[in-house]
Amino acid sequence: MGQRVTLKDVAARAGVTSATVSYVLNGKKSISEDTKRRVVEAIQELGYVPDLSARTLSMSQRSSKLIGVVVPQTEENRLMFHNNFYSEILGSIEFHARQNGYHVIISATDANESYLTLAKERNLDGIIVIGMYPDEFYRQMKESHIPIVLVDSYCNDHYYHNVRIDDAYGSYLATKHVLSKGHRNIAFFSGQLKENGVMKKRLLGYKDALKEHGIEFNSKYVFEGQIDHESGIESANQLLESKLPATAVIAAADILAIGAMKGFYEKGVRVPDDISVMGFDDLKISKYLTPGLTTVRQEISLKGEKAVDFLINNINVPDLTKQEQILPVSIIERGSVKQLGE
Amino acid sequence: MGQRVTLKDVAARAGVTSATVSYVLNGKKSISEDTKRRVVEAIQELGYVPDLSARTLSMSQRSSKLIGVVVPQTEENRLMFHNNFYSEILGSIEFHARQNGYHVIISATDANESYLTLAKERNLDGIIVIGMYPDEFYRQMKESHIPIVLVDSYCNDHYYHNVRIDDAYGSYLATKHVLSKGHRNIAFFSGQLKENGVMKKRLLGYKDALKEHGIEFNSKYVFEGQIDHESGIESANQLLESKLPATAVIAAADILAIGAMKGFYEKGVRVPDDISVMGFDDLKISKYLTPGLTTVRQEISLKGEKAVDFLINNINVPDLTKQEQILPVSIIERGSVKQLGE
Repeated sequence: MGQRVTLKDVAARAGVTSATVSYVLNGKKSISEDTKRRVVEAIQELGYVPDLSARTLSMSQRSSKLIGVVVPQTEENRLMFHNNFYSEILGSIEFHARQNGYHVIISATDANESYLTLAKERNLDGIIVIGMYPDEFYRQMKESHIPIVLVDSYCNDHYYHNVRIDDAYGSYLATKHVLSKGHRNIAFFSGQLKENGVMKKRLLGYKDALKEHGIEFNSKYVFEGQIDHESGIESANQLLESKLPATAVIAAADILAIGAMKGFYEKGVRVPDDISVMGFDDLKISKYLTPGLTTVRQEISLKGEKAVDFLINNINVPDLTKQEQILPVSIIERGSVKQLGE
Repeated sequence: MGQRVTLKDVAARAGVTSATVSYVLNGKKSISEDTKRRVVEAIQELGYVPDLSARTLSMSQRSSKLIGVVVPQTEENRLMFHNNFYSEILGSIEFHARQNGYHVIISATDANESYLTLAKERNLDGIIVIGMYPDEFYRQMKESHIPIVLVDSYCNDHYYHNVRIDDAYGSYLATKHVLSKGHRNIAFFSGQLKENGVMKKRLLGYKDALKEHGIEFNSKYVFEGQIDHESGIESANQLLESKLPATAVIAAADILAIGAMKGFYEKGVRVPDDISVMGFDDLKISKYLTPGLTTVRQEISLKGEKAVDFLINNINVPDLTKQEQILPVSIIERGSVKQLGE
């Protein structure tokens, strides 16, 4: 590596002690304006870049300006980017973190290696955890005493800040929308229904809307799989094989809806002419499908931004009490749900 | 933050000096097996986690075990994740880096802040740069003396390792495929055609295949835009307005093909019945479109894996000469290109 300009070089150029340069950099002590100017000029002239890995040792608050983002992983231990929800929110987090002078380190959680180890090794200033994890994970992470924001989690522990939507309400709106189009036999495609999980909440909203319309819930109309395209295709095939008189599908995620549309297409079942499909998420791709996907919009980018806001608040004020925000959802009408009888 | 177990604590428990613990951790000196065992046991008993930000100072090679990944950014300074090529390759890079004990720090390049500053601040062990940047960027990065792998760049500087495909050849294959289906009037949708850029190479392949078939190149058939869905829609509209007798489109990126399919759909022009569409990339989504997208497959995941391999080789052997690999491409036939006359 090339010769690195050091703090000592800056001190020599400015004619002050290394400690004074440190004071100026860290804003720890009142320094005369003249000295400050000399130090800043020396920094500029020499092209000095503070070494953050050194600074984390010398600064008492040990700030690394590094934020960890935990993304769920697939069975092959890869980041779950096939569901663009994760890449979209990561893009937003990286952007807002960067605007605030933080860098982002990404990692899938690895069952073989505690994330806590990574957090300690990297001296992370804070962590954003996307998705739901086993209870043990939350118990461990809490011990780190690092500021943590949970995204899309129904973990109630007051240690954690929370950003999410009201998943049950979103699904309730989706079902109401489909009902308003005259549909009565409505299938529900979901990922794994775990206690306190997002999928379970979305199923609840579907049930509530049916109930409100005097329609009895029938568990045969629920098709449970994974949250991926293939599961959407499989559920579409299962629905067709079931011979249930469904005229519409509510998919608990856009990625499932996309798979379902493909599954129906392959069997010659036209969307929306033969069956309507409603999604949930409003991924960027969803408006470019043919037909465009009618879906529940959640502000994925805003979710990322809020998570960064909450995290930085807590980094700056370590004793900050729990922050929580439930972001709004709305129905986006495109072409995949039709008025029945048209 | 909680009480952190320090190297001194480990030394005390093991009954050795702190220096000895360091030697064991860094493998710098031959230490007796018995001492090693005592140190390792003490580390395990105390749950000691080496602080990498401290270690970067104490170790002479200053390894941070941190890899930077540079992703192009949109006009709004966000990571270019709307093109899933970038999220897919990032997922692969993160996975393979993690398997090798490295963490990944992501960042869009910011015109206001030199990436070199980030690289120095974070003491990056290596950098993977995806996409093409201004010459100035390459000149600057070279000065860092940090191992760097370029992905999808035609920068010829021997300082950089290279992983890419033969873009012209891929596009040549695509055009040959469409020609083999009987099409003769074939439009080409591309992103910005920059000198030495991937798009320009893909245009070359298209021209070569036409020439081979005795078809004169007509620049009216080339529709240049950005690499995003909206540009695909716009180019589709422009092609329809042009009244050119095109029966097929070769899009220089799947994301453009997806937009084109949407544009045609909105105008009632059916794919592939009225017009055939061929893509390039084989994004994960492309097989789930309706119809599925016929496209040029490049091994996006393998590209990420190779980039990590090359980078780690160079981190381990600083004087390593340039490594270069051109990954294979192939045609994936789905439903979006039809035999003309059928």
